[in-house]
Amino acid sequence: MADYSAPLRDTLFNLNHVLKLGDRAGQPGFEALDADMIEPILTEAGKFASEVFAPLNASGDRQGCTRHDDGSVTVPDGFADAYRQMCEGGWTTLTAPETYGGQALPHAIGVAVEEFLSGANMSLAMYPGLTDGAIRALVARGSDEQKATYLARLTSGEWTGTMNLTEPHAGTDLGLLRTRAEPNGDGSYAVSGTKIFISCGEHDMASNIVHLVLARLPDAPKGSKGISMFIVPKFLPDENGESGERNRLSCGSIEEKMGIHGSCTCVMNYDGAKGWLIGGEHQGLAAMFIMMNAARLWVGLQGLGQAEVAYQNGASYALDRRQGRALTGPVEPGQSADLLVVHPDVRRLLMDARAKTEGLRALILWTGLLTDLSHHAATEEERTQADDLIQLLTPVVKAVGTDIGYDVSTQMQQVWGGHGYVAENGMEQFVRDARIAMIYEGANGIQAMDLVGRKLPMKGGRAIQSFFALVDGEIADAASDGAVREIAEALGKANGELKAAAMWLMQNAPENPDNAGSAAYAIMEILGLVAIGLMWLRMANAASAAIDAGEGDKSFMEAKLLCARHFAQSELPDAGALRRKLQAGAEVIMAMPAESFLRA
Amino acid sequence: MADYSAPLRDTLFNLNHVLKLGDRAGQPGFEALDADMIEPILTEAGKFASEVFAPLNASGDRQGCTRHDDGSVTVPDGFADAYRQMCEGGWTTLTAPETYGGQALPHAIGVAVEEFLSGANMSLAMYPGLTDGAIRALVARGSDEQKATYLARLTSGEWTGTMNLTEPHAGTDLGLLRTRAEPNGDGSYAVSGTKIFISCGEHDMASNIVHLVLARLPDAPKGSKGISMFIVPKFLPDENGESGERNRLSCGSIEEKMGIHGSCTCVMNYDGAKGWLIGGEHQGLAAMFIMMNAARLWVGLQGLGQAEVAYQNGASYALDRRQGRALTGPVEPGQSADLLVVHPDVRRLLMDARAKTEGLRALILWTGLLTDLSHHAATEEERTQADDLIQLLTPVVKAVGTDIGYDVSTQMQQVWGGHGYVAENGMEQFVRDARIAMIYEGANGIQAMDLVGRKLPMKGGRAIQSFFALVDGEIADAASDGAVREIAEALGKANGELKAAAMWLMQNAPENPDNAGSAAYAIMEILGLVAIGLMWLRMANAASAAIDAGEGDKSFMEAKLLCARHFAQSELPDAGALRRKLQAGAEVIMAMPAESFLRA
Repeated sequence: MADYSAPLRDTLFNLNHVLKLGDRAGQPGFEALDADMIEPILTEAGKFASEVFAPLNASGDRQGCTRHDDGSVTVPDGFADAYRQMCEGGWTTLTAPETYGGQALPHAIGVAVEEFLSGANMSLAMYPGLTDGAIRALVARGSDEQKATYLARLTSGEWTGTMNLTEPHAGTDLGLLRTRAEPNGDGSYAVSGTKIFISCGEHDMASNIVHLVLARLPDAPKGSKGISMFIVPKFLPDENGESGERNRLSCGSIEEKMGIHGSCTCVMNYDGAKGWLIGGEHQGLAAMFIMMNAARLWVGLQGLGQAEVAYQNGASYALDRRQGRALTGPVEPGQSADLLVVHPDVRRLLMDARAKTEGLRALILWTGLLTDLSHHAATEEERTQADDLIQLLTPVVKAVGTDIGYDVSTQMQQVWGGHGYVAENGMEQFVRDARIAMIYEGANGIQAMDLVGRKLPMKGGRAIQSFFALVDGEIADAASDGAVREIAEALGKANGELKAAAMWLMQNAPENPDNAGSAAYAIMEILGLVAIGLMWLRMANAASAAIDAGEGDKSFMEAKLLCARHFAQSELPDAGALRRKLQAGAEVIMAMPAESFLRA
Repeated sequence: MADYSAPLRDTLFNLNHVLKLGDRAGQPGFEALDADMIEPILTEAGKFASEVFAPLNASGDRQGCTRHDDGSVTVPDGFADAYRQMCEGGWTTLTAPETYGGQALPHAIGVAVEEFLSGANMSLAMYPGLTDGAIRALVARGSDEQKATYLARLTSGEWTGTMNLTEPHAGTDLGLLRTRAEPNGDGSYAVSGTKIFISCGEHDMASNIVHLVLARLPDAPKGSKGISMFIVPKFLPDENGESGERNRLSCGSIEEKMGIHGSCTCVMNYDGAKGWLIGGEHQGLAAMFIMMNAARLWVGLQGLGQAEVAYQNGASYALDRRQGRALTGPVEPGQSADLLVVHPDVRRLLMDARAKTEGLRALILWTGLLTDLSHHAATEEERTQADDLIQLLTPVVKAVGTDIGYDVSTQMQQVWGGHGYVAENGMEQFVRDARIAMIYEGANGIQAMDLVGRKLPMKGGRAIQSFFALVDGEIADAASDGAVREIAEALGKANGELKAAAMWLMQNAPENPDNAGSAAYAIMEILGLVAIGLMWLRMANAASAAIDAGEGDKSFMEAKLLCARHFAQSELPDAGALRRKLQAGAEVIMAMPAESFLRA
């Protein structure tokens, strides 16, 4: 049976030794932070995740959600109670503004807690996760009345939120969507249409569900410029703000899926449902991207969560299961066989998993800090730099992070051999659950297009240039200690490949945009390697400094240095191969006549 | 809903244009081959696979197998009838010796048909697939009486066969197995023990099930040198060779698994079951490897089957689903959106899938031919060379082939976006089914160890040296035509990386065997790239020659040349990165203290 414990030590290492979050207490945006509270908060969050969320992960997968004939949906046994405990414990309110009952804690702490919850039970963590996106859209674009009506209840978790984007014929291409909103004449609108793949669209855990729905006004321009966003609650708030009359919307069916069975994926039917415009007319896409960008970072974090729980269970099996003997001779001759962990090829899988997972965690915690800085840093310059970096890194965190989640889950299942394929051991669920994260909130290929189409050219390439400078600067500043130097040198080479790839793109995309399309995924992967490599440089520096200062657990710090070296040796060399591949350009892949792809 | 059609054209291209199988008709080992029959046989086999096997794939997955309280197991609806049709159609007898009712056709044809069946319905194809392994072991090691009793009925499919190796504590490490066989005094043995993960161990499709069971004799040496193989039928054959008395064995339970739900995975309990020794005492491992090596090639073919069916459905979706516009401007302005296939990043996924899948098919069909040549070629030298190549390539086909199966299935699911995650569309089943092939018949890491530990050093490195010479020779002979030259040059570089990797291994493994272990997987992957690259060189040569001669479908041949170029541009560059990685050696991965792998 798979188990979960929150990666507390690694998270605290990042927050305390790498990001030095405590030093920011009291600074703009960190007023609510008390440095002494970081460890207790995370300790409690980890306990909550492993004791309340994790035990429901496998049972939730087996039982799944049930839609009844009346359109109501029941979540798996125990989910509602665990969610209630989450709300009562205040875990939904960590980073929300104090005005609406939030604790205004830094996002660096918020994402750490979200990782724990998502690693413990990805399906269950989706309900509050989606709510968080709705909160952000309302904070940014809602009217004062809308904020007053919805934000406190969403923050407390009494109500949950959803994003209603996709329609059967309109997935990536939202310009195709058909759901309509007709003015009722009283400031409200009648929303009609069918939305699919609506996560947490209907369930029995909250007294109201607040749907943020993309739809077209009657006079809307065609395509994505004619999309507006509406707030469409399941129950219309009455004059006291309580859930009142049932709105004309319902869950038509739920999907049978590969995984995340505990998270209901709903077809939502809107039949003249009453809704209210958020933001301006035809401004829905901009409002949606507020939700979406936050959601993309959060989905990257889902990849991290699955990688972490899979790694833990892969490692514990490797230290428990005995098969074969070490190549250098029996390690435990008195036992029937040695532990799996003596085998270099098993260690390779574990070290790969570790280097990717911990590197991704460092990256995600850094983006958490950057989120805080982008809103609250003291100077405009700092805020802008943080915002540039977040925008640049969002597609990388989403796509590279979820690729890592699937890859690590798969490799840790491999450590278990045949026992990893058997459902009751839990390893195969991690793979099935991790798989969706590569698809939703913009499939990973879309993230790559976002990177090359929007983020790299943004403001004349300012974000990527500032990233290059950051990496070069940190390499130059790196200590000359062995492991640190090794990762710094490998990172320097990879950064050189990234620069070469970006240069190739600048020279070849203008003449033929398909060259941007064919190179996009590889460039994103190289950027992912460099970004995570930068994290390993920082972690190696911090671990090396801690060892020198006699701080922290020495064996933990030494393991960090080994993982940094492993990342340098086993991951960063891919940057060169990826650069060579993308330089082949689009010629061959575009030359194939479409019908030649079909077997006949 | 996913669909399947046999890749007939590509298979015939390989058999006719690349392997020129028809030219061998009448040669030793190809006496039963009539060149004019190749296309009709494969056409019929393809029809059978798509019309009889494929329609049961999704329903078999949903329904799964059922074990009843009496230990009997029911397969999914329709399986038994489809299997009966398979037997009646003679599809189980293609390559079996004529003495036992086989058709003695070349294995190159046999593996082609097996791919079709496995691609159409991997679970259902396992029942005859396992039987095939049992036949091979009996042909090679059975006594005349055993052959007379079992082979005709196994060949016809009236009885099916299984391999009983794994025990709860003994998976990869068969030396740990505990099942015992006590002499009954009448030449038979009483076999007692528990076996797990027994595919097709119990079912209702055949009148008898013939288990080949590894067990220990009372005086057996410890470890893998004390293992013997026994034939233990479910029903003891009576004096007429019919199924008689029930043997003392039963299915204790079946596993709930990630996939291949239509294939029952049984716990088999032997309780003094009557069995007969196959081969000599304590010679079980050698007998098992006869089954196992054939099974490993067949499992690689399962990877091919899933890659193919996933590719077909990915490609057909890309030519059906409309989202977004081409980067170079609308291709079909009259439509709401362009087809997915206009997008370079979608084409990248399709071209990757195509290049890997068709390259793997060529490799597997070649190993089919090599199997025939290893047994029947006119000269000892030819037989030996063919056998060397098969031994060298077996771990590559198994591991690289199944990695491709999983990777391509995953990427084709990605083409479908959210619709690929929904069960009813069928894409996610391909991923779940493909996953097991990386694990069973020796997990892929074990294949890598087999390659570096046995196959590379075998006979002083004779097999790999002869492979190097073969590749160099074919590169030297390659036509100077554009696409052919491009793949030849890229292959030459990759072969250089392989030589460098092999050299590094020779220089570094003797001093520290862990260097062999840490490098094993990467070396296997490089060998896979070179072997598949060689296939693309051959296919490009053949396609180029066909175009020059005006033979065959020109658009098909042109697509071959494009895929060859894509393989050269997008796959072969990985060889260099893999070589650089493995040269880091085992130091870092072995330096981590075992307990540092645990989160605490």
